[in-house]
Amino acid sequence: MNAHNKPKVAIGQAGGPTSVVNASLVGFLEEARDHFRVFGIVNALQGLVEDWLVEVDDQVYGKIREYFRIPGSVLGSGRRHMAPGDFAAAVDHLRKRDIHHLVLIGGNGTMYACRQMELAAQAAGYDLTVIGIPKTVDNDLLETDHTPGYGSAARYVAASVRDIGEDLKAMQNFETVRIIETMGRNVGWLAASSLLLKEAEHHPPHFVYVPERPLVLDRFLGDVERAVSRFGYAMVVISEGVRDLSGQVLSRIALNRDANSTVLGGASKYLANQVARHLNLPVRAELLGMNQRCFAAMASAADRMEAELLGREAVRLLRRGESGVMLTLVRDEASGAAGLPFRVGSCPLERVAGKERPLPDDVLNEDGTQASAAFKAWLRQLAGDDLKAYPGWSFMPGRVGGRGGVRRI
Amino acid sequence: MNAHNKPKVAIGQAGGPTSVVNASLVGFLEEARDHFRVFGIVNALQGLVEDWLVEVDDQVYGKIREYFRIPGSVLGSGRRHMAPGDFAAAVDHLRKRDIHHLVLIGGNGTMYACRQMELAAQAAGYDLTVIGIPKTVDNDLLETDHTPGYGSAARYVAASVRDIGEDLKAMQNFETVRIIETMGRNVGWLAASSLLLKEAEHHPPHFVYVPERPLVLDRFLGDVERAVSRFGYAMVVISEGVRDLSGQVLSRIALNRDANSTVLGGASKYLANQVARHLNLPVRAELLGMNQRCFAAMASAADRMEAELLGREAVRLLRRGESGVMLTLVRDEASGAAGLPFRVGSCPLERVAGKERPLPDDVLNEDGTQASAAFKAWLRQLAGDDLKAYPGWSFMPGRVGGRGGVRRI
Repeated sequence: MNAHNKPKVAIGQAGGPTSVVNASLVGFLEEARDHFRVFGIVNALQGLVEDWLVEVDDQVYGKIREYFRIPGSVLGSGRRHMAPGDFAAAVDHLRKRDIHHLVLIGGNGTMYACRQMELAAQAAGYDLTVIGIPKTVDNDLLETDHTPGYGSAARYVAASVRDIGEDLKAMQNFETVRIIETMGRNVGWLAASSLLLKEAEHHPPHFVYVPERPLVLDRFLGDVERAVSRFGYAMVVISEGVRDLSGQVLSRIALNRDANSTVLGGASKYLANQVARHLNLPVRAELLGMNQRCFAAMASAADRMEAELLGREAVRLLRRGESGVMLTLVRDEASGAAGLPFRVGSCPLERVAGKERPLPDDVLNEDGTQASAAFKAWLRQLAGDDLKAYPGWSFMPGRVGGRGGVRRI
Repeated sequence: MNAHNKPKVAIGQAGGPTSVVNASLVGFLEEARDHFRVFGIVNALQGLVEDWLVEVDDQVYGKIREYFRIPGSVLGSGRRHMAPGDFAAAVDHLRKRDIHHLVLIGGNGTMYACRQMELAAQAAGYDLTVIGIPKTVDNDLLETDHTPGYGSAARYVAASVRDIGEDLKAMQNFETVRIIETMGRNVGWLAASSLLLKEAEHHPPHFVYVPERPLVLDRFLGDVERAVSRFGYAMVVISEGVRDLSGQVLSRIALNRDANSTVLGGASKYLANQVARHLNLPVRAELLGMNQRCFAAMASAADRMEAELLGREAVRLLRRGESGVMLTLVRDEASGAAGLPFRVGSCPLERVAGKERPLPDDVLNEDGTQASAAFKAWLRQLAGDDLKAYPGWSFMPGRVGGRGGVRRI
């Protein structure tokens, strides 16, 4: 087939990058280039609206392939608020180029944009197939067992909380409380992943607060005090989006206190202030930050493999003529019967577009000190089962000739 | 030799932990236990003053060995301000236990404490040999080519800045400037390590500010603007201890602004505010945080090996009857002739106690955009030579039918 007779497809990477979103792009390209002329959309929605495309010829493909194991979104991502008329304009651009296939890799906002592109094309009488490839560190997409990007981020969070906890254990005569803030504006999946390597009560984190459960300050302070009295120090993990009983996001409360400053922000800083004020304990707030979604050394091999697989599967859907769907990872009887951890499926875009998948209530126990065995076994498949808990020995209570020796605290 | 006829030695881990300080302890114990009865000092200086020791019998040794590859300080560390009389009290405790050998693993503050212990013992007429094993992520000890702990921290910093830069490159239509803050209250060694993986001007970081050079705000803002105009975004790295022309530490300026709040702090936040106010660019400040000194997955194998080696060498010094010295890593003609990257040496405690080793002026070029080739070759030996720069491709300026294709920016 002459290259210029091939149907054309445009692909973009939308929203915040992950450690493995380039693997989805490379997987897609590897499968697509035999069958399609492929155009990369620069900066995703912005590129769609501004008609900013790059043809993925052999030279460009060679460059993109270098990014298979590299974080970020090599086509450019960013965010863009879509104004009325933007989707119609984007359809017009595609029409001028005779591009009838569109693939966007992204989260629930991107799936909403996919659905809007589908509707805008219908309204314009333009034949456009639209496929979504899921991607998010937040793991907040419905209909899929999990989302590529989450496993690597969870791996970074679990290792960080284990290691920062070991550091705090050593420093407990100087610094007593650390409040670690993970990503997760509305859902607690990443905060919960910090419990992956907790095997005993004294292992960090001592407790976890997620946006799905209100954070009552008195109870929070009581949890800190109890951990300090039991273990000598308190390692706490919170999602950035934790809320109080009225649903107010704590980081917004912190911001309002010094509304003229952009320096503030971070629920962990707000809570650290409360610990210092009410418990008079030495406390540090720490955001795990951007490394959660981009630290290459902690990318999960399973996560990357799944991201690549979904990229390839998108091409198969296109070739079957499917449209208006997002690819999913499905764990069901069929996958079980085949001996697979999951199989690839799909679901209509409107079932995921703009919706969120909260952390199920049974993942954390009532006091947020443990995650269920089922959750941890599931997460180990995504994040890697090579990470281990530390022994948790402490010499602090042992004195020569005193209480003697060493014990686990 | 009956265990109870062996001379006794006490060892402690002082100051902030590193990813490899437990390797020094394990190396010491492995070598020492045939020749000495060993006592672990819990919480270092605090344990010395409060007579808080644990005998390292077979059971305790078995537990400590589990920590060879684990961050933190398994004996407990923390910090303690030593009051007048504390050193004399510590000598008294050692005398009662008939412990005539003391080894502390630590930084320049710890070497000062070692020296004070030596003087207090002399004043009390007590025979005490004192050896210091260097340890610090800051690399600010004099007399040694480098300090165990730094290589692993530098590795984390270099990888983080590379990865967070790649993430920002993808997000540049949404977020334009990131200011990354490393450890380093007085010295720029860790901030400079962020240049390890920079091979081209467009690679992150675009420039670095260290405490050894005054940060003039106008120039800083000019540097940000120039990077944004050249590369589309600006990745900046600063040491936490950067100062203005008058020597004022920027994070203190930030703190003074809201003196009633413990929430603030961080020179990066202060500078991000300035970028937002004066340049009106979307900016984020990010502290690399505790993971710099404890993220186990990024511990450098060379760093761990050196830490262990110095632990073993401390035993050899003790057995030769040396005292009042800190072990060093020496790169000189003798090491060169032997084909070694360095040899082990020692220096009198007073040459390092309480002193700091600034980053030499020739490591960074005048505008802080590059580190010297010699520095990078040296650092690669400490941090590992497996980390690579990313290609740095950007599709942003390329449009189909426009300026065409892809180029490096």
